[in-house]
Amino acid sequence: MEQRNDTRYPVHEVITQRWSPYGFSDRAVRREDVLSVFEAASWAASSFNEQPWRFMLATKENPAEFEKMLGCLVEANQGWAKVVPVLSIGITKSTFTRNDKPNRVALHDLGLAAANLTFEATARGLCVHQMGGVDREKTREVYNVPDGYEVQTAIAIGYAADPQDVPEALRERDAGPRTRRPLTETVFGGTFGEPAAEVR
Amino acid sequence: MEQRNDTRYPVHEVITQRWSPYGFSDRAVRREDVLSVFEAASWAASSFNEQPWRFMLATKENPAEFEKMLGCLVEANQGWAKVVPVLSIGITKSTFTRNDKPNRVALHDLGLAAANLTFEATARGLCVHQMGGVDREKTREVYNVPDGYEVQTAIAIGYAADPQDVPEALRERDAGPRTRRPLTETVFGGTFGEPAAEVR
Repeated sequence: MEQRNDTRYPVHEVITQRWSPYGFSDRAVRREDVLSVFEAASWAASSFNEQPWRFMLATKENPAEFEKMLGCLVEANQGWAKVVPVLSIGITKSTFTRNDKPNRVALHDLGLAAANLTFEATARGLCVHQMGGVDREKTREVYNVPDGYEVQTAIAIGYAADPQDVPEALRERDAGPRTRRPLTETVFGGTFGEPAAEVR
Repeated sequence: MEQRNDTRYPVHEVITQRWSPYGFSDRAVRREDVLSVFEAASWAASSFNEQPWRFMLATKENPAEFEKMLGCLVEANQGWAKVVPVLSIGITKSTFTRNDKPNRVALHDLGLAAANLTFEATARGLCVHQMGGVDREKTREVYNVPDGYEVQTAIAIGYAADPQDVPEALRERDAGPRTRRPLTETVFGGTFGEPAAEVR
């Protein structure tokens, strides 16, 4: 798979390969791959091993369920996501099961799980495009999400399309430069904003 | 490295190896490994590529700075974390730089970055133990964290200790069973709480 990310320091190839395309192929994802990417998510770390994440899942194999989930995305995402074979919506449990106290890091821990899912998918030649653009109220209604749980994110899983098959507007977005802040602007030492000695 | 996690479906070996020990060795982490784990973090996905994560970093090579950060952890974490060679505190930017609007998923995206960091560390034979137990107010004061940024988590990075060198109380916690909910209780289909057909 292509090394998409031009990193300043060497990192694992799966991290250099990960990207979030807008142009997806309609090629189906095998059930064994779906199982393994969610299994990977479930082995993320979480505060007190609460595993606050839950996932709604819809695939093209059930068109009615797929349309139902697609309709929970904001319109801007429905345009490119409609061809993706696997969609998921990430939900968090708001309190710790052990003591019913609020779980301040539930959304963080959903991110840990989503990154594990993305890693496993990338290692299998799949691409993942995560979205904050989900209609949270509609999703709660459509899926009967109970009180104590919060609808948070959406996740598209599939194969990147051949660029020549991607509508021009999306193709241009996918072809744009991939940039990140240098570590000197991200990893700080004794005071916020001052680069740590280790990254200077 | 040991395959710690008994997964129900096959996942990448780095995911089966990841765990969060309490018993760390005082073995130093090479600077090149520190650079690569934070580089990996920086290549996580984020909403509008905001990269809302920032990290304070302290290592044993600067004892004063290390003590300063250790003192920002809740007491229960200071006990085991004091031997870890590398500590970090995760901070989020509360708004999007592009339009100053609130970034609802900043904490989620810090989780994506922390998982990338953890993945890179695990692939290098290191262990990561993340903590929600950080004194957020004290950290803001000590590091002059400005308004518009939120102190969120702490991260310990080092090598797992040989169990025989770990105090008994911690050794027992590290030796405990590693459990996760089955996918049937995490991945749902048409209605929240009902297992998706793909995971049944």
